[in-house]
Amino acid sequence: MSTNKFGMTKYPFVIGHEIVGVVTEIGSKVQKFKVGDKVGVGGFVGACEKCEMCINGVENNCSKVESTDGHFGNNFGGCCNIMVVNEKYAVVWPENLPLDTGVPLLCAGITTYSPLRRYGLDKPGLNIGIAGLGGLGHLAIKFAKAFGAKVTLISSSIKKKREALEKFGVDSFLLNSNPEEIQGASGTLDGIIDTMPVAHSILPFLALLKPLGKLIILGVPEEPFEVPAPALLMGGKLIAGSASGSMKETQEMIDFAAKHNIGADVEVIPIDYLNTAMERIKNSDVKYRFVIDVGNTLKSP
Amino acid sequence: MSTNKFGMTKYPFVIGHEIVGVVTEIGSKVQKFKVGDKVGVGGFVGACEKCEMCINGVENNCSKVESTDGHFGNNFGGCCNIMVVNEKYAVVWPENLPLDTGVPLLCAGITTYSPLRRYGLDKPGLNIGIAGLGGLGHLAIKFAKAFGAKVTLISSSIKKKREALEKFGVDSFLLNSNPEEIQGASGTLDGIIDTMPVAHSILPFLALLKPLGKLIILGVPEEPFEVPAPALLMGGKLIAGSASGSMKETQEMIDFAAKHNIGADVEVIPIDYLNTAMERIKNSDVKYRFVIDVGNTLKSP
Repeated sequence: MSTNKFGMTKYPFVIGHEIVGVVTEIGSKVQKFKVGDKVGVGGFVGACEKCEMCINGVENNCSKVESTDGHFGNNFGGCCNIMVVNEKYAVVWPENLPLDTGVPLLCAGITTYSPLRRYGLDKPGLNIGIAGLGGLGHLAIKFAKAFGAKVTLISSSIKKKREALEKFGVDSFLLNSNPEEIQGASGTLDGIIDTMPVAHSILPFLALLKPLGKLIILGVPEEPFEVPAPALLMGGKLIAGSASGSMKETQEMIDFAAKHNIGADVEVIPIDYLNTAMERIKNSDVKYRFVIDVGNTLKSP
Repeated sequence: MSTNKFGMTKYPFVIGHEIVGVVTEIGSKVQKFKVGDKVGVGGFVGACEKCEMCINGVENNCSKVESTDGHFGNNFGGCCNIMVVNEKYAVVWPENLPLDTGVPLLCAGITTYSPLRRYGLDKPGLNIGIAGLGGLGHLAIKFAKAFGAKVTLISSSIKKKREALEKFGVDSFLLNSNPEEIQGASGTLDGIIDTMPVAHSILPFLALLKPLGKLIILGVPEEPFEVPAPALLMGGKLIAGSASGSMKETQEMIDFAAKHNIGADVEVIPIDYLNTAMERIKNSDVKYRFVIDVGNTLKSP
């Protein structure tokens, strides 16, 4: 096999597109960083810098975007002890943001933060649904709450209810497999961030939206969604996909996270635990991100 | 049968939700109109005036909206000689806008104008695709051109090509059934207004969009659309449904149309031609709207 299910992974391949480290050396033209600074690198490390997307500051949508871990382009990912990166594609790390809980923000964080902002779902008092409680979902809850939303977790697993309410402080919980529960909340949400990565119907989510409500798709089920036109036309609803965010948004997100004490729930592991971690990910046995301590420096005093 | 395919038509039913006439009488509190004024009425004549949608001036999305012709609510449509309407739901008719070509704007016009404005597809220089050349499509072309767009007609019929280019002055034509033609234009459009009312794939349309491009669905095929998540996520694209527009937008649209000499292409018919007209509509034999001259006054000098 030379590609993954979306035909976009090239082998040999090194994982790692949520990376944080300390600057050890800088080029002569570097202005944003000095040796010793903490620095973050997310999902991409290059773009054409000439196209309409690059010029408009949304270079994550450049057709020549170079992913950090080689999905697009010819790079190897962040599982390494030294990395060379163009300063444009590195974020200044806020002094008070922990490295371990902060590092997943560089992809999972920006992926949830960006659409909340782009689609105006960042206004205090909105009713926001988050579908799925995993790596993306738990961060989406934290950002939505920080924006001042009332947050509803929508899950296909009743087992998530207690954690959602008690640990993450969501305002309500809806079991996606319970039609009465969904029906009872129909027309109440301003937006939904759908992080579910497995096949599911989005019709209940469209029904949960108020008129002019927005459903943002972040997960990638292998089956296509079925969307009857009236479910969109009645109430002028929209479905949008979103992936990552621009460097400008990423810096803004990481500063916002530092200010609001937002970080991922993580389990820090040494690199020789990686194969076990991969097995545990397959079994959904992670809350909610593994962070690989490549240099074995995170736990040292 | 007591309802149509969407389960929303109540019988007995009188058609007519694009109506223009002359005020013959006013209530004591009416401020917008005086006897003798021309007045237009579109798709709805009432709303709750209390809900979030009504308060936000998008009362077309009110869950209690009363359609003019009885799809929702208890009204009878505009095929009548006298109609009573709340002034809030009537538009002031611009002096220079012809009644016959102007009247279809009250539904077909606002339905195409509203999403072009709401989704920022009204900026000069954008590349806008219009899918389908019918009652909605020909008006979408006219509005998009008036906003300063380069317009591409996307049609499943090569027979529409000459008319689109020569009569409506579109900048280019794409045959939807020709994959090479679609492929050659992929990633070029900022937005697409899809007016096709019959089953079709929207994947070619998503491919035609630039990153961050917007696909607006106005037609209602009976089959649901199939949407693979990557077609939305890659490039952060969106699909939105839209129906009608608010009264504020409708007045703005009708004033804009008058200023830019926009009207529908119509065939004016007497009311006793109606059954023949319905047969011709079934056979797609109308360019592009029949206008029923109920009072037999449009053709008189």
